[in-house]
Amino acid sequence: MNAGRSAFCSERVAAGASCAGVNMKVLITAGGTSEPIDPVRTITNSSTGRLGVEIARAFAKLENVEKIYYVCGKRAVLPDSEKTEIMPILSTNDLVNAVKKVFAGDAPDAVIHSMAVSDYTVSRVTTLDALAEAAEKAAGGSADFRAALMNAEAIDNTKKVSSYVDDMAVFLTKTPKVISMFKDMPKKPVIVGFKLLSGVPEEELIDVAFNLLRKNECDFVLANDSTQITGDLHRGYLVDAEKNIKQFETKAEIAAGIAKAVTEKLV
Amino acid sequence: MNAGRSAFCSERVAAGASCAGVNMKVLITAGGTSEPIDPVRTITNSSTGRLGVEIARAFAKLENVEKIYYVCGKRAVLPDSEKTEIMPILSTNDLVNAVKKVFAGDAPDAVIHSMAVSDYTVSRVTTLDALAEAAEKAAGGSADFRAALMNAEAIDNTKKVSSYVDDMAVFLTKTPKVISMFKDMPKKPVIVGFKLLSGVPEEELIDVAFNLLRKNECDFVLANDSTQITGDLHRGYLVDAEKNIKQFETKAEIAAGIAKAVTEKLV
Repeated sequence: MNAGRSAFCSERVAAGASCAGVNMKVLITAGGTSEPIDPVRTITNSSTGRLGVEIARAFAKLENVEKIYYVCGKRAVLPDSEKTEIMPILSTNDLVNAVKKVFAGDAPDAVIHSMAVSDYTVSRVTTLDALAEAAEKAAGGSADFRAALMNAEAIDNTKKVSSYVDDMAVFLTKTPKVISMFKDMPKKPVIVGFKLLSGVPEEELIDVAFNLLRKNECDFVLANDSTQITGDLHRGYLVDAEKNIKQFETKAEIAAGIAKAVTEKLV
Repeated sequence: MNAGRSAFCSERVAAGASCAGVNMKVLITAGGTSEPIDPVRTITNSSTGRLGVEIARAFAKLENVEKIYYVCGKRAVLPDSEKTEIMPILSTNDLVNAVKKVFAGDAPDAVIHSMAVSDYTVSRVTTLDALAEAAEKAAGGSADFRAALMNAEAIDNTKKVSSYVDDMAVFLTKTPKVISMFKDMPKKPVIVGFKLLSGVPEEELIDVAFNLLRKNECDFVLANDSTQITGDLHRGYLVDAEKNIKQFETKAEIAAGIAKAVTEKLV
């Protein structure tokens, strides 16, 4: 074991990874995903991608970082660094494929998963009238209302849904949890997860973030609350596996804090 | 009547407007609106706002244009011209208020309504389970399934809806038609509406656009199809009140064509 090398790094080297604090490859996900309702309407997670840009900037500054894979929403603002390969995506499904592609190649040493991933994708577009009709039919028959509603007559959403349709109903179903993919990679990277809540007490926010960390074997989770984000002011708590907490107040501070924590873990 | 002044312009002057082809004020709406599902998720009309920027550029170039009010989605790309006042908005409701504000002041001579306005806003966020329960209750009681479903127990969407919720159902209801507001303004401006469909025959597209023109007393409608828009290539048909059609192939051509048609109408 090299003097000063972390236990995490030694394990990675033993597993055949190039971890030694040099030639680091980093995967950053940033911005928000969007899930189509039809060809012109989408469900979007509001995220400008500006935090991701700061994170990319913080890593690009480090001499021992060789390459940054930057997977981001198509409308996100973009970092500018020669080290950075931009991989724009739309849906959660696209994100899963992009992550697989990155890991199939030059497996990254660290993943900073800051993207606001839609937890839901559109499973069916229908109308209140179609739902009422399905319920009425079920009342006179199967009485399985859940199945009847789920299978109510759908609107063809391969084309733009006409604005003449009254009272649309959009069913949303869960997307796969992308954060859970990283721990199962052959060469497990340092994983930084993100948890965004809105308007909750600090203690609850940190508990929820810590549960996310344990469930997905993250090394760190950045916990933040949408009510505490205005422009560059952005309060964040970086929680580690021992539930130590570092508090930051701006996007730049969060980015620098993550880069520092990850680097310390990798050398 | 001035030599060379259009009938339209003469009518406006008679009504007290400053229409004479000088000191023109133009309202351009651009980009897309977004309607919140909760504090972090929105339903968004996909529009980069790049066509709007081209239109603003085409009008800003004209010496007789004094001022451009540019109402656009918060994430839209922006034009840069000293003549342009940017008014960013989010929802259709914000758009309605912005339009009223512009007309309450320095009433514009022309409106180019290129914004992709959400035809729907979120009226209720609920779950498939809550809908099934409401239907079951109605089956044993009122049998008014439509009302029961519409009033199924809602999720509190003033906070971020937890990703632990299974099978979300989002009800959407129609927003007011902003295009219909302009014809009722005290000094009716030249109105350019937009109609976007996806994957329809050219004839149908133009018929639908012409109906929009007649219904909302537009002077022109730009008809386009999302399947014929890729980057700067953007096919558009400018339809006038006599159903004359001019075809364009790029955003810059569309913008120049609209600026020309509006200017000819106003002098």
